[in-house]
Amino acid sequence: MLPITWVIPIAGVAAIAFALYLAWDVLRADTGTPAMQEIAGTIYEGAVAFIRRQYLTIGLLALGGAVVIGGVIAIVEGKQVADTDIYGLELGVRTGVAFLVGAACSMASGIIGMFISVRANLRTAAAARSSLVRAVQIALRGGAVSGFLVVALSLLGVYGIFAAYGGFTVPNQAPFLIVGFGFGASFVALFAQLGGGIYTKAADVGADLVGKVEAGIPEDDPRNAAVVADLVGDNVGDCAGRGADLFESTAAENIGAMILGVAVYTIALNSGWPHPEGWIFFPLVVRGFGLLATIVAMFFIRGREDENPMNILNRGYWVTTLGSVVGLAFTTYVMMNTGSDLPSNGIPAWAWFFGAGVVGLLTSIAFVYITQYYTAGTFRPVREIAEASRTGAATNIISGTAVGFETTFLTAISIGIALFASHWLGEQAGLVNANGDNVGGIFGTAVATMGMLMTTAFILAMDTFGPITDNAGGIAEFSKAEASAREITDRLDAVGNTTKALTKGYAIASASLAAFLLFSAYIDKVNLILSRQIAAGTRPAGTLLTSVDLSNVSVFIAALIGAMLVYFFSSLAIRAVGTAAQAIIVEVRRQFREMPGIMDYTQRPDYARVVDITTRAALRQMILPGAVAVATPIVVGLLLGHEAVAGLLMVGTISGVMLATVLNNGGGAWDNAKKYIESGHLLDEAGNVLGKKTEAHAAAVVGDTVGDPFKDTAGPSLHVLVKLLATITLVLAPLFIR
Amino acid sequence: MLPITWVIPIAGVAAIAFALYLAWDVLRADTGTPAMQEIAGTIYEGAVAFIRRQYLTIGLLALGGAVVIGGVIAIVEGKQVADTDIYGLELGVRTGVAFLVGAACSMASGIIGMFISVRANLRTAAAARSSLVRAVQIALRGGAVSGFLVVALSLLGVYGIFAAYGGFTVPNQAPFLIVGFGFGASFVALFAQLGGGIYTKAADVGADLVGKVEAGIPEDDPRNAAVVADLVGDNVGDCAGRGADLFESTAAENIGAMILGVAVYTIALNSGWPHPEGWIFFPLVVRGFGLLATIVAMFFIRGREDENPMNILNRGYWVTTLGSVVGLAFTTYVMMNTGSDLPSNGIPAWAWFFGAGVVGLLTSIAFVYITQYYTAGTFRPVREIAEASRTGAATNIISGTAVGFETTFLTAISIGIALFASHWLGEQAGLVNANGDNVGGIFGTAVATMGMLMTTAFILAMDTFGPITDNAGGIAEFSKAEASAREITDRLDAVGNTTKALTKGYAIASASLAAFLLFSAYIDKVNLILSRQIAAGTRPAGTLLTSVDLSNVSVFIAALIGAMLVYFFSSLAIRAVGTAAQAIIVEVRRQFREMPGIMDYTQRPDYARVVDITTRAALRQMILPGAVAVATPIVVGLLLGHEAVAGLLMVGTISGVMLATVLNNGGGAWDNAKKYIESGHLLDEAGNVLGKKTEAHAAAVVGDTVGDPFKDTAGPSLHVLVKLLATITLVLAPLFIR
Repeated sequence: MLPITWVIPIAGVAAIAFALYLAWDVLRADTGTPAMQEIAGTIYEGAVAFIRRQYLTIGLLALGGAVVIGGVIAIVEGKQVADTDIYGLELGVRTGVAFLVGAACSMASGIIGMFISVRANLRTAAAARSSLVRAVQIALRGGAVSGFLVVALSLLGVYGIFAAYGGFTVPNQAPFLIVGFGFGASFVALFAQLGGGIYTKAADVGADLVGKVEAGIPEDDPRNAAVVADLVGDNVGDCAGRGADLFESTAAENIGAMILGVAVYTIALNSGWPHPEGWIFFPLVVRGFGLLATIVAMFFIRGREDENPMNILNRGYWVTTLGSVVGLAFTTYVMMNTGSDLPSNGIPAWAWFFGAGVVGLLTSIAFVYITQYYTAGTFRPVREIAEASRTGAATNIISGTAVGFETTFLTAISIGIALFASHWLGEQAGLVNANGDNVGGIFGTAVATMGMLMTTAFILAMDTFGPITDNAGGIAEFSKAEASAREITDRLDAVGNTTKALTKGYAIASASLAAFLLFSAYIDKVNLILSRQIAAGTRPAGTLLTSVDLSNVSVFIAALIGAMLVYFFSSLAIRAVGTAAQAIIVEVRRQFREMPGIMDYTQRPDYARVVDITTRAALRQMILPGAVAVATPIVVGLLLGHEAVAGLLMVGTISGVMLATVLNNGGGAWDNAKKYIESGHLLDEAGNVLGKKTEAHAAAVVGDTVGDPFKDTAGPSLHVLVKLLATITLVLAPLFIR
Repeated sequence: MLPITWVIPIAGVAAIAFALYLAWDVLRADTGTPAMQEIAGTIYEGAVAFIRRQYLTIGLLALGGAVVIGGVIAIVEGKQVADTDIYGLELGVRTGVAFLVGAACSMASGIIGMFISVRANLRTAAAARSSLVRAVQIALRGGAVSGFLVVALSLLGVYGIFAAYGGFTVPNQAPFLIVGFGFGASFVALFAQLGGGIYTKAADVGADLVGKVEAGIPEDDPRNAAVVADLVGDNVGDCAGRGADLFESTAAENIGAMILGVAVYTIALNSGWPHPEGWIFFPLVVRGFGLLATIVAMFFIRGREDENPMNILNRGYWVTTLGSVVGLAFTTYVMMNTGSDLPSNGIPAWAWFFGAGVVGLLTSIAFVYITQYYTAGTFRPVREIAEASRTGAATNIISGTAVGFETTFLTAISIGIALFASHWLGEQAGLVNANGDNVGGIFGTAVATMGMLMTTAFILAMDTFGPITDNAGGIAEFSKAEASAREITDRLDAVGNTTKALTKGYAIASASLAAFLLFSAYIDKVNLILSRQIAAGTRPAGTLLTSVDLSNVSVFIAALIGAMLVYFFSSLAIRAVGTAAQAIIVEVRRQFREMPGIMDYTQRPDYARVVDITTRAALRQMILPGAVAVATPIVVGLLLGHEAVAGLLMVGTISGVMLATVLNNGGGAWDNAKKYIESGHLLDEAGNVLGKKTEAHAAAVVGDTVGDPFKDTAGPSLHVLVKLLATITLVLAPLFIR
């Protein structure tokens, strides 16, 4: 083995150790006043209750999934389609085990991260009583626990299962054996995101409708029995959900890139380059350097008390990015060694791939700024929505829809440029296989995806910063903390809203690049199976999958179904929020009716009961959309075959990325249009501020409420759907061969 | 020539003669009271003013377009890519002329149809004073003038230009020469639909916001200066727009099917079947029989005074459908003559294709019922939205969005089944070309599309029935007609809302089938050019376009851009409505301020000025989305080449069909949820009606307003965009070859 591959376990273990240190640092911090502790305790209990029940449900589903997947793979072996020397029952068991390990790692990172973040919220609120910088540190460190664990567990999980399945002895076969890991991660991510997303928005919408609209009490008012469920929701939706989403991205991308690396491995072996297995291990090593860069960056999270907190976070992000560039350069230089060959224009192969990786890092930066442009109050789109609120809710919604639709433009163009540039750079490296095909292009896009995902741990820390500060604000409000503390938590909350939006942009861009890798991995895998069948004489020669031909009627139909699926799935997810919210409304109304002391503060509402009802409703509602997402590719694959399912995968991905962009950015823009009005930026003709309690504000509140299930339930669930489509087809490819 | 081809000119001329008879019948009808005549005269003037200005603008754009297209085609000949024996300057001129003829026919059918419908409205209102059946007859006959003219001019236009370009001597080359006709029709349709769609909704939204919301006066109140513009808008948007849309569908589908017929023609010629040219002429003959069936159906538009008007219309639709089945059977039997061959299972080829045609007719019936299910108040989706209105505008919008998204499900499944079944039936006919490829499958989908489009004239008559009755209602209201007349116009208006929604479902289904034909025609055309280049030695052998491979990075990027385009285009169209509405609001406010007599009826508002302002704003606003639609495929084709542009075309079509379905049906469902509440179907817990002036109704009005630009501007414009993408790439294919 190349010595550099030791970076994988070292960085993984270091990241976990560092996460433990951060957790310890957060937990030892001041826990504030008893009033704060009380409400934080209630949130904590609610979150733990939900997580316990949710992960129990998901765990059972995953166990069933593993048995089914393993069984199917074991049986299909009878058709002689195994893609490695290992097949039949053994392949089935291995796939099932990999699935379970993937599911378990994803669940573990979600649970532990969540456990810290529901404790960091209280400590952030307490710290806000004395220092802004310390509050930022605690919130970001709390978030970083999630970030490090997600990336480290994904890395070590893939590495461990790869090693266990003989990756060091048969590096070119093992990547195909570990695809179950990615599917397990996707499977858990889908239900975690759906359940959490439905919970958080059902609680939010339910609390608002019954509290603000019906009872006429303010947001976050303790008399509203749903208010604790709302605070719990911020944790389970935003933080556990996004963690599962990015766990899956990193796992799926690692596996996809390793499968593509097999093609280069073969070239390297035939050309006698040193360390051919380096091309397969490369994705893991790069990820390790990304983790190390993020650890370093955590030491730069410091600043002045009067500084904009966003600057403090940005400083960390830039350190991570710069560290990643250095790590990327070093890794490509060491691992992409083509001996003395200078493949193209006198520039060595590693340099072209380093360029492709930089394209990925630049793309992630581009997405940070694009998302900011579309969803921050300082730019045209949000102002346009705020202006439209003057004439009522209808024009607010029309304007927000137009903005949401518009955001697809820069998104698609940026992804297009990233794919084109990284593909072109990869082609220049001149990796030509025995058939004369240049496999460097697709490997270039793989390296770009890796570059992009190097900063995942830091991005995820910034993301979880959002719900922690949001909760801290709620705790400060609820416990009637001093004004100075509430001012700080408000500032942090605003920054948290921005970081949450940015992460979604990052997640969707990485999902589309990762999905493109996984298509190629799917085609590679199908062709491996087909060539074995051709070699065995059970299939005529010349029937490899050389293209996914949209002009073929089956592919076209599957593509149509793929485009439909993303709408249908979103429809189910959005409707689930409504149904769950209805259950909450009924319960809160009952409490107002049967406990008349609530309104004059003489009776304490039964928060726990609402939390419990929300939990059950969210878990019940996540099943249908989840089942549709899993079943559709399987049904289409069985009916229309292996080429058609690739069409479903690709057009489903394109459509999913576009719709998620619309839902995420539209929702974010509506949210900030409301905030724009609340901060007094909208003036009437006479120059007076049109703030809260005006009709313009009421219109903006409608837009914000509409955007909630879009940006926090359907949009993020679509990220997961896109990757699930890729991993499910990759694992079940043998089933679809005809 | 086969004698049966005489049906083409005979049916075309008969349909025009019949349309003239209907127009005469409508115009001779009673024109009601002077009050009715006055308001109708104002609407008429406004509509004529808009149409004159709009078609002048479009005519100039089309002239410029023709010169550019002709010039480009003439120049590209230098690259030796002409696809017929005619090339160079001559090909350029012919393409430019075909473009202009297509544009002129489309404009003529729009203008004449419109001219009748703005006169039929008054006569329908007048007839409603004495007889429901007579009112239905006048409104449907007024609409049928449009219907017959659109289909007949499309048929005669294609036939005429085909004949002029030597279709009777070189039937296998002429279809490629007439593609300019389809592009001309698309080009006009795009701007007609955009301009009309922006006009109608800007006037509607503007009138509502400034009248109902700001001044607190009812809808259609004569004191609102924008109310006439609103009534004018019903005509120019719904009637002229949909006419242009379906003109394009029929023209593009004829041309696409004729190009596919060329492949069968070659087989027929080689196999010595009688009348090989029959396979090329078939689409035109079938369309002719569809026209004859529609003429017959018009005599069945009669019924009892107490009958549901929808039944009367349905009777006509079923007669048209049955007549079409008979015509289809006869045409396939006569024209698809394979001599004594019985290609498959002892069943002759014509019978398989007859089956495919029936699949098309069944699909159109399916779409009528699907649309009805999703948008009519008697079913679950609309009720769900009405129920959600109880808790305010936000839940109404969320629920409507979920319903809109959901409607993609049955739409995609139905289109998928139609494509699969017709492709399978066509394959059974056993039409195998010299390379051993079965070309029957794709021809089967072509026949299904033709079957579907046989009923176009009747569908279009039902569609235009909508704006005519809508206007009749407005005229009755405005002129304070007797209650009995208003009751009848209200009933007709409700039926008109349903027929308008159905037509959109029909239009989108036919657009997706037609687009699938046009893809195949595009591939045929590209390969013709490529084979000529290969034969000339300027291109290596084996480089034909055999697939549109989504796993190719350029195709994938183009596909991503196609998916983005439909959102971006819709965003521009929706925003255009907002901008134009703003101009109206400013003007109406000015009139209220400067003409204080308006509010107490002592001053007459300046309706004409608002009409004029709306006209100018709509025409200005249609340019940007139109330009984006035309430019995107050209830019992508030039940058990424001929295979990539096919990816853009296909994924753009799939995405466009899905998004149009969401926008059309979502908008229709919101509209009818409002009507559901207004007709007193929503009850509160105590069983009291929650009707007008309740909060639930206010919430439903917000949903209705949001749905307006979705269903009447963006959605229908997407139909046109989808077909424009197909015709533009078909015409400019030589430019994209690399």
